[in-house]
Amino acid sequence: MFQIPDHQVAGHKASKGIIGPLIDNSGRFYKPLQSNNRGSKEESFYKKFSSNTEIPNHIRKFFPTYYGTQHIEASDGSGQHPHLVLEDIVSVRTNPSLMDIKMGSRTWYPTASQAYIVKCFKKDSESTSPNLGFRISGFRVYGNEDSGYWKPERNYVAGFDTNDVRIALRRFVSSNSNDLDGESDCAFAQNVYGGPNGVLAQLLMLKKWFEDQTLLHFYSCSILMVYEKIKPNEDRSCVTIKLIDFAHVVDGQGVIDHNFLGGLCSLIKFVSEILDN
Amino acid sequence: MFQIPDHQVAGHKASKGIIGPLIDNSGRFYKPLQSNNRGSKEESFYKKFSSNTEIPNHIRKFFPTYYGTQHIEASDGSGQHPHLVLEDIVSVRTNPSLMDIKMGSRTWYPTASQAYIVKCFKKDSESTSPNLGFRISGFRVYGNEDSGYWKPERNYVAGFDTNDVRIALRRFVSSNSNDLDGESDCAFAQNVYGGPNGVLAQLLMLKKWFEDQTLLHFYSCSILMVYEKIKPNEDRSCVTIKLIDFAHVVDGQGVIDHNFLGGLCSLIKFVSEILDN
Repeated sequence: MFQIPDHQVAGHKASKGIIGPLIDNSGRFYKPLQSNNRGSKEESFYKKFSSNTEIPNHIRKFFPTYYGTQHIEASDGSGQHPHLVLEDIVSVRTNPSLMDIKMGSRTWYPTASQAYIVKCFKKDSESTSPNLGFRISGFRVYGNEDSGYWKPERNYVAGFDTNDVRIALRRFVSSNSNDLDGESDCAFAQNVYGGPNGVLAQLLMLKKWFEDQTLLHFYSCSILMVYEKIKPNEDRSCVTIKLIDFAHVVDGQGVIDHNFLGGLCSLIKFVSEILDN
Repeated sequence: MFQIPDHQVAGHKASKGIIGPLIDNSGRFYKPLQSNNRGSKEESFYKKFSSNTEIPNHIRKFFPTYYGTQHIEASDGSGQHPHLVLEDIVSVRTNPSLMDIKMGSRTWYPTASQAYIVKCFKKDSESTSPNLGFRISGFRVYGNEDSGYWKPERNYVAGFDTNDVRIALRRFVSSNSNDLDGESDCAFAQNVYGGPNGVLAQLLMLKKWFEDQTLLHFYSCSILMVYEKIKPNEDRSCVTIKLIDFAHVVDGQGVIDHNFLGGLCSLIKFVSEILDN
């Protein structure tokens, strides 16, 4: 009944000795509760968020639906383990292309330990996070039946500089994304990034909320973009934007999350530039 | 001909052995070039900015006019020293109230030395900068003829937390700002923060530019707010917003300044909340 999803591009992947996420065939995603208190913090976030009446519906749709926590056999066969039961955003789609973008120029939360801050500071500094306000954590792009997916190695993505990010965001919406030598054609840019339900419109909706909301600060949270390559003349909305990874969400204490918002504005600028060209 | 201005609320102040700024009686402000390359970097910024045709006029007005660099006798009498000759925003006014707000959650620029980063990181961490995306560096508020100015000590302002910032922004626009025990009446909030030429409108104009401009990143730069307490029935525009302190401005390299922008959005939220109450 449970399977290891093949679409994961970031985060802890199931392998020998490491518990990874599972999916079932009814559209649910099982995320094992992480160690070091992270799992219980993320569970606590989902519980509180689900019942928070201050979240408007047009914003709630940017978060995966939470169906509770369930003990199931871990992906490595090591026995029962608690899992967050979430909406499966990816596997229910045909040939999804996806990108995981970790938001914020810094990834540590205010009350983190000195050791954790030092670790995050170093990792952030080696990425585009301080310069861009975000970093690409991973992605995969579907080419076609012959070429299949282009999914760069994690280490390769971790070494991205500003220009690599620009190229990846172009390649992500190109029909020739698997042609690593050629210039990306951005054939799907208008369909995926543009339009009334495209990435840009959705990010601008999120931005409007983040300019005002002082409830929550989302440290080390990602924006997940998912779409299917459809024929250019098909006009259905095919893009999903979700926020994921809430182990380090803290109370906003009446202040906006300028760390997330600054990175969001920066990402919006990158996407806008691709649309303008 | 030259005088030491009495309105300074932040930065290096003229005193024995320290060269501070000077003013003349024709509305010009003389800022001594700082040591450690900062002075030449700031001079270079002003020169390039003055001739940069990509800066729209409605944005240029947020920057002090630069009249060149001039050697004059230093404020401490130690001889000739080069000074930036700038528009004097403050002394030309009657009883100006002013506030210096240092922008950004971090104050160091990307190519700074490790030692400089460590120093800034520590100083930022002790302030509201990481949490709010800005910190108040200093201010003074004019009460009335009897009470004169309320100008808190630098060390007191340096210890501000989020709530102190909120209170200071309220007190800054109150008629009873010198009454430290009472609740601020925010009598001047609509006149100073609101209206078509008020602080909020000007900050929103700046925000719009920062969402788009990728020319310059303004590390450790301040927003200076200046106004005069006028009678409530006087309807003239009395608020000036200027960016100041450009020793750490760097090339934007095609990316927005999310560090400044995030703090600006946060400041806008604080000001909006005062107007809403």
